[in-house]
Amino acid sequence: MRDFSADHSLLSINTATVRQQGDLLAIIEGCVRHSIQAISPWRDQVATVGLDAAAKAVRTHGLKLSGYCRGGMFPADASKRQEARDDNRRAVDEAATLGAACLVLVVGGLPQYSRPGSAVSHDLGAARAQVEDGIGELLDYARGARMPLAIEPLHPMYAADRACVNTLDQALDICDRLDPTRSGALGVAADVYHIWWDPNLFNAIRRAGRERLLAYHVCDWLVPTRDLLTDRGMMGDGVIELKKIREAVEAEGFSGFSEVEIFSALDWWTRPMDEVLATCIERHKSVV
Amino acid sequence: MRDFSADHSLLSINTATVRQQGDLLAIIEGCVRHSIQAISPWRDQVATVGLDAAAKAVRTHGLKLSGYCRGGMFPADASKRQEARDDNRRAVDEAATLGAACLVLVVGGLPQYSRPGSAVSHDLGAARAQVEDGIGELLDYARGARMPLAIEPLHPMYAADRACVNTLDQALDICDRLDPTRSGALGVAADVYHIWWDPNLFNAIRRAGRERLLAYHVCDWLVPTRDLLTDRGMMGDGVIELKKIREAVEAEGFSGFSEVEIFSALDWWTRPMDEVLATCIERHKSVV
Repeated sequence: MRDFSADHSLLSINTATVRQQGDLLAIIEGCVRHSIQAISPWRDQVATVGLDAAAKAVRTHGLKLSGYCRGGMFPADASKRQEARDDNRRAVDEAATLGAACLVLVVGGLPQYSRPGSAVSHDLGAARAQVEDGIGELLDYARGARMPLAIEPLHPMYAADRACVNTLDQALDICDRLDPTRSGALGVAADVYHIWWDPNLFNAIRRAGRERLLAYHVCDWLVPTRDLLTDRGMMGDGVIELKKIREAVEAEGFSGFSEVEIFSALDWWTRPMDEVLATCIERHKSVV
Repeated sequence: MRDFSADHSLLSINTATVRQQGDLLAIIEGCVRHSIQAISPWRDQVATVGLDAAAKAVRTHGLKLSGYCRGGMFPADASKRQEARDDNRRAVDEAATLGAACLVLVVGGLPQYSRPGSAVSHDLGAARAQVEDGIGELLDYARGARMPLAIEPLHPMYAADRACVNTLDQALDICDRLDPTRSGALGVAADVYHIWWDPNLFNAIRRAGRERLLAYHVCDWLVPTRDLLTDRGMMGDGVIELKKIREAVEAEGFSGFSEVEIFSALDWWTRPMDEVLATCIERHKSVV
């Protein structure tokens, strides 16, 4: 297990963590101020400042990108399917332009939430089939761009509206069917917030192995959790056994960044960016 | 699949559904008014009116009990373990006195939440081991009282504070280890709210089979869900494929009641009891 205590060279900041405190260029400047060496930006944040300006800032400061958030939202009715396809190809292209390590896929839930305007359906099995078809199709495109796709299983509380892939095993089943040779083109983003509760977690991490573990995200699960979406905790403030999970991931040979991704409307989004980044560094060194 | 459209003879009301509108005796009177033939009461509601008065009201009106809520909360530190054991044995005795079909087990999460006052632990694996030990011990006692125990897997969003058994398969693994002969003494309570998202749901229902399916609970998953605990939907108001899941459960031979259990601080708990019960009946006949 790697030693994080001496420095924060393996810390990445998912830029959603400080999305309320500034635009992407301001966040990049903040990261540079704190000698943070990697980020994972969101598409809407990139769009706001412009792809070229974002790419230039990344290059100028020599930042690495542990991922790019996000492609996905595959379930759609016929009227929205082309939109979903085009949108995901643009996400691959943007990720390549920015030099991201992978494109993270939040796969989408039922079509009316995944691609608003789609006809209402409660058929979760059909949504899951569409997700697999969509990933399969995008994978061909992403191979051409040499951009690995990282399926992020989301917590089951998001199954209806955000992602109907809800466990590592379910994501790995998709990977095994679409990329049986474990080529490196398709894998998973393992976010502790979504997977910590899984009784099969440690088996699933072993099953994933180095080839499938494309990204590792940390935050914490608060008790009580006051909001399903925006009440994630800072590492160390909740109940997740962070070191135990990281140890398992690294035992498989994962050598990437530990990416902090915190959505916190009531707490961390209300604090100054420098305080949040300094706290991420401190917790990265002490409890992650 | 049984036809629910003609009458509501297979409807049971979990008394938490109208817990804000009256005490258990008032709820029983309400159910009798609406020709509802079964209930599933909570221990605190029974305690408030007294066990003898509750048992008498149940007998007087010829009500059946589809279950009794609840035993469990097994994880505890050494100082609280005897309390947990005694408390669960009392729950078995009360269930027997009331003539319940089973005692529902909400197994508990980390010890500090399961049995407050216990020392803080984040070891989810240890909590799960304590749960299995606790069920095993209680099972001997419950066999003596001829009271089946129904493990209720709770949604993963409750893994820390309410139940660290979070999928049907996880519950069935425990059943298989503790009751390998499928004697009928140990099984599961399948609540659609907790299990609808599970990619392995239909396999797990088949795996459970008639001997393990001791109770079936319905409500609905709302989008958005505004509170993790008290924002369950009335059947038909959310996204759960209710008929599809009931069909699978009944295909295994389940012949018990369909029990409505809705915690709804913002909606159904604020409405008159008769309106809630009438709506449960209407939805039972139309969408369950």
